[in-house]
Amino acid sequence: MDVGTFFLQLIAIFAAAKIGGELARRVGQPAVLGEMIGGIVVGVSGLGLVEPHEPVIHLLAELGVVLLLFLIGLETDLRKLLSVGGPSTIVAVVGVALPLISGYGVMRFLGSQPIVSLFIGASLTATSVGITARVLSDLGHLGDRESQIILGAAVLDDLIGLTLLSIATAVAAGQRLTAMGVGKTASIAFGFVVAAVVVGSVLAPRLIDLITRFKISKGLLFASLIFALTLAYLADAVGSGLIIGAFAAGLVLARCDKGQEIAREIHDLGQFFVPIFFVAVGAAIDLRTLNPLDPHSRQYLVIGLLLSLVGVAGKVAAGFCATGGGLRRLVIGVGMVPRGEVGLIFAQIGLSSGILSAGLYSSVALMVIITTLVAPPILRALLPGGVRRTTHGLSDIVVDGISDGEE
Amino acid sequence: MDVGTFFLQLIAIFAAAKIGGELARRVGQPAVLGEMIGGIVVGVSGLGLVEPHEPVIHLLAELGVVLLLFLIGLETDLRKLLSVGGPSTIVAVVGVALPLISGYGVMRFLGSQPIVSLFIGASLTATSVGITARVLSDLGHLGDRESQIILGAAVLDDLIGLTLLSIATAVAAGQRLTAMGVGKTASIAFGFVVAAVVVGSVLAPRLIDLITRFKISKGLLFASLIFALTLAYLADAVGSGLIIGAFAAGLVLARCDKGQEIAREIHDLGQFFVPIFFVAVGAAIDLRTLNPLDPHSRQYLVIGLLLSLVGVAGKVAAGFCATGGGLRRLVIGVGMVPRGEVGLIFAQIGLSSGILSAGLYSSVALMVIITTLVAPPILRALLPGGVRRTTHGLSDIVVDGISDGEE
Repeated sequence: MDVGTFFLQLIAIFAAAKIGGELARRVGQPAVLGEMIGGIVVGVSGLGLVEPHEPVIHLLAELGVVLLLFLIGLETDLRKLLSVGGPSTIVAVVGVALPLISGYGVMRFLGSQPIVSLFIGASLTATSVGITARVLSDLGHLGDRESQIILGAAVLDDLIGLTLLSIATAVAAGQRLTAMGVGKTASIAFGFVVAAVVVGSVLAPRLIDLITRFKISKGLLFASLIFALTLAYLADAVGSGLIIGAFAAGLVLARCDKGQEIAREIHDLGQFFVPIFFVAVGAAIDLRTLNPLDPHSRQYLVIGLLLSLVGVAGKVAAGFCATGGGLRRLVIGVGMVPRGEVGLIFAQIGLSSGILSAGLYSSVALMVIITTLVAPPILRALLPGGVRRTTHGLSDIVVDGISDGEE
Repeated sequence: MDVGTFFLQLIAIFAAAKIGGELARRVGQPAVLGEMIGGIVVGVSGLGLVEPHEPVIHLLAELGVVLLLFLIGLETDLRKLLSVGGPSTIVAVVGVALPLISGYGVMRFLGSQPIVSLFIGASLTATSVGITARVLSDLGHLGDRESQIILGAAVLDDLIGLTLLSIATAVAAGQRLTAMGVGKTASIAFGFVVAAVVVGSVLAPRLIDLITRFKISKGLLFASLIFALTLAYLADAVGSGLIIGAFAAGLVLARCDKGQEIAREIHDLGQFFVPIFFVAVGAAIDLRTLNPLDPHSRQYLVIGLLLSLVGVAGKVAAGFCATGGGLRRLVIGVGMVPRGEVGLIFAQIGLSSGILSAGLYSSVALMVIITTLVAPPILRALLPGGVRRTTHGLSDIVVDGISDGEE
């Protein structure tokens, strides 16, 4: 890609994010929904201005979601998160098991092979923690107890999903599964978070102390950025997921003296990168798979709608396994619904390994589109209070505590 | 490149920039010198952690230099710049003519073909406005009259250089030169700046007015960013150079009511991207061309040293064509010395089109390295006052007016 094309794509991304976000807020919806729809308009289904699979756009989008999870971590109180550990775990486990089993069942009923059915079931399990956290933050509810349960469950979901993904990849590559292998993958994914938080809590304050003593310009910003990128890299390298590492880095730094200051610095940077992620998610959505006039795509449309139903029902049911009132449990369930990019990663591995046909890939993609786009407006309707309007130049990815005096 | 590798490169870039910049300041040198040397340490001559030719790093570095020139434009008073138009023009024209003629002469004397000699002469003409502006800003002298002359002359140099470059590219491709063609290229390059400033001055205030009425979060930042990227893109598309477009965008927005506010917003973003550019400049420097123990590379080392001498002498002589005291004229001349990436672009086109041998390419690269690295410490010695130490978390790319209360 030459520099001119790169700049054109950035212009399209920022225009889509800002206009889409603003229009969404005007009709009372979270800005993130507008950013994703803006992405559809400028993406592969629309004007074709943004190519989400271009390496540089993809990498900047990844940096965006990593910064978002780092920010979410910075705003999360580890003790509060651990205090809802019980309900989070139940919601996560049920929210993985139900969609996996019912997705498998639906596909077997429709006559698919066991391996194909398993793959589609697995692609129904993920929760896109980025989208949900962003919606809760847009609506000013990130600090609520329900939100903490969603956040904890979504992170656990990601860890379970990563384990499933490496199993699925191994199966797709024709490898034999061993209980040892599965156990090892799972322990690394979960162990990393624990290790990162424990070791990080010892090292981070010393690092921050050292940096602030040097008076390097923007030293705190760059030190914490390097810390987050390093943890994200390590998490990815040991098989625990980039965003999990970034979230752990945020959890650790939130407990330092300078946690709030770091959050403010990273927040400014996030405003540039986070919208790239959401516009890219929208830009990658291919609406042609939805065409009901094409007889060939019609059967996959029906399968996609069935999978969406199963996917929504499974997560909503999981929410009802939490404690609390009915509305709160509904909020938790709906909060777990968006599959976002995580579901698509499964589908893409299935497609490239030959397990999924192009038609079934479209069905999974449709399920991802529907679950991703329906959750934000439903959450908006369920949660009290309006969408926050920014007046002090602070954006919608601001989360409680940073946005002093904004509300 | 996968995401992990991308993150590793970012970590290396930021560590090199911050540690290098801090060490440079501790020994009383401009931070930008430390960033470039940090780049050498992590780049192709050193640890090999940063690959400046990787597309994503290259594109982010380009975004960095575009943001830097946009910032410099935002801090430049157009009237002040025009008021030194006379001396700037003389310095620019002499600063192109002398190195071109003497470089050509030296190479002809050494027995090179006319076309080869012309190419090397042309690669001696450029001034890297980014490096010089950054040094002046690091030293807190961007507002001085000499600095304005340097800035004006460096921008004119870039425009002349771009015209020479398109001529050289046409010659390298075997095309015939016509006076018409040269005139057209030159008028587009120069005409764009005039058109951008005139049209922009009418449009920009209305645009800013419109955006601020909407209260879009970070609307001012994104509106001005889109404005700058668009002008950079257009400038590049018509053959006038990305950074020229960004500088023009800055000049225009500086004259709006919200100019200072825009500068502050863009400045925060620049702190992330600008160091990527300077570390990438350093990372691309291949010190193996300097090895005096290798008999083969020795002759090219000698040629490179001769070219450096000619390159420094030509620009210093050009500085003495300005008005003012001897020291001031020396400052102007030295300020024009760094060739930076612009000289390397010439050399690379020469290499890839077969006009320059690998050896002569190394000689030009050596000239670029020497001119780029000697100018910052000499300027530092010539200019009164120390290097500014930041204490309020504002960085060294801050320029007068933004950094309230910092000094």
